[in-house]
Amino acid sequence: MVFKIIILGSNSAIPTIKRFPTAQLLNHNDRFFLIDCAEGTQLQLRRYRIRMQRINHILISHLHGDHFFGLIGLISSMHLLGRTKELYVYGPSPLMEILDIQLDASQTELNYPLSFHELHPEQSEQIYEDDMLIITTIPLNHRIPTCGFLFREKQRKRKLKKRITKSLNIPVDEFVKIKEGADFIDASGRVYKNDEITEEAAISRAYAYCSDTGYYEPIIPFIKDVDLLYHEATFMNDKADVAAKKFHSTTVEAATIAKKANVKKLIIGHYSNRYDNLDDLLTETKEVFPNTGIAIDGKSFDV
Amino acid sequence: MVFKIIILGSNSAIPTIKRFPTAQLLNHNDRFFLIDCAEGTQLQLRRYRIRMQRINHILISHLHGDHFFGLIGLISSMHLLGRTKELYVYGPSPLMEILDIQLDASQTELNYPLSFHELHPEQSEQIYEDDMLIITTIPLNHRIPTCGFLFREKQRKRKLKKRITKSLNIPVDEFVKIKEGADFIDASGRVYKNDEITEEAAISRAYAYCSDTGYYEPIIPFIKDVDLLYHEATFMNDKADVAAKKFHSTTVEAATIAKKANVKKLIIGHYSNRYDNLDDLLTETKEVFPNTGIAIDGKSFDV
Repeated sequence: MVFKIIILGSNSAIPTIKRFPTAQLLNHNDRFFLIDCAEGTQLQLRRYRIRMQRINHILISHLHGDHFFGLIGLISSMHLLGRTKELYVYGPSPLMEILDIQLDASQTELNYPLSFHELHPEQSEQIYEDDMLIITTIPLNHRIPTCGFLFREKQRKRKLKKRITKSLNIPVDEFVKIKEGADFIDASGRVYKNDEITEEAAISRAYAYCSDTGYYEPIIPFIKDVDLLYHEATFMNDKADVAAKKFHSTTVEAATIAKKANVKKLIIGHYSNRYDNLDDLLTETKEVFPNTGIAIDGKSFDV
Repeated sequence: MVFKIIILGSNSAIPTIKRFPTAQLLNHNDRFFLIDCAEGTQLQLRRYRIRMQRINHILISHLHGDHFFGLIGLISSMHLLGRTKELYVYGPSPLMEILDIQLDASQTELNYPLSFHELHPEQSEQIYEDDMLIITTIPLNHRIPTCGFLFREKQRKRKLKKRITKSLNIPVDEFVKIKEGADFIDASGRVYKNDEITEEAAISRAYAYCSDTGYYEPIIPFIKDVDLLYHEATFMNDKADVAAKKFHSTTVEAATIAKKANVKKLIIGHYSNRYDNLDDLLTETKEVFPNTGIAIDGKSFDV
């Protein structure tokens, strides 16, 4: 089952021709979640041939412009291109007022429902659940209220061993019980123990998105053992004092968090404009946490 | 003296990779005016190597997103890049509230003064004057309050005929009077008639920007005889009914206005997304008004 992210913008603060500011698209089983939406995100969706109307959920971590200035444009384009499907937007207050005042000014009445879910970044909350996935927020440590997002697959039910069960003529209404752990008794009275006819489902996976934040150990319990962690690394280690002052992290700090949380893989991003070449950031991060990837616009990562 | 525009975005409604929505930079004698500011305008400035901090005046014609969604991002970037010089923003209400709520949400206090001048598009008003240029608004006919802008050079004073005057030892304090039409009497009492020692200054030039608007003859007195007219042509002639319904213009309507106003040159732009190739729009416009140019991102036009 698909569970991957594509980086739409990897930069901090200011858009450049090479690197757009922060946005990511998460695809879980062909359900599309947009995480942050900087200026130009709709252009990046076009560039990477992602149909914007497939996005039903947009999560905004905080109200610095490099994380949400593209939202009103995307919402307008969805409208102009004839969307009718509901769109769910999650973000801190006053995001909805910011959208409303702009829609009012242009006398735009959206031709699709927009549901706004206000986030309260000071505490973790579950904000989304479907049959396969749960999203919870992760309080971060930034200059303004900011949260990360944890996407965790639900533990799936046991899988039938088809090579055995296909000859057993199991009635359809027994399937659910067996997947939940029940044994099966066939017409002759023979008992098949559950572990004879089923096997463990694939292990559930988790992705954590943490941007923007200073070095902040309280996030560790939330991101413990995740398969993939995106952690901002705005600065290199020699700028640790600047990072701390601006409530951002360095390469080494991102790597240290990844190590302490025992995550499987780390991605760094949200680079300061001062870094033209990213090789040194990656090298420095890998010295502390070897399994690190580097966010680059257009690049995908499997969870 | 430089008097030219550069097209930063030529499209209507939705940004595409090839054509950004509306924005233009006007350069008059190295004073830079940004006219409209769609999403991605700051990227276009980078792409065409225009230093954003040289812009001191931003004029917003109306509050449809394809004309102003890039403004907050540009204002933020100017701040992040250390601007201290005052910035003047002109636009209809509630533009300042839209900016303020977003600056407040990010707890940004701009480190430069931003002066907002509210436009009242229902009537023409002079909004700017310096020693060489006057800007007045042009009421347009769109779905929401919208104005165009007329940039007219002041008539310059007469020029000294240097080949004659350099030998006359004219005192510096006489220069102004002579340029204003006075004669000159030298030490011996000889009278030099003004037209002996001066000549007409170059004729003052004018640029008119009219986007967005339906076909609207009341603009003609404002744009009469201008050197360069930008008039939107969102649709081709066969979509005249759609254009009218949406308060936009066709190629033929833009050309007809240009002809009736006796302008020297016309530029069309603000194309609907349905037009991939623009050749047909240009051909159709030229059939009515031959001296027409086509707005393309990155292209410059002298006034």
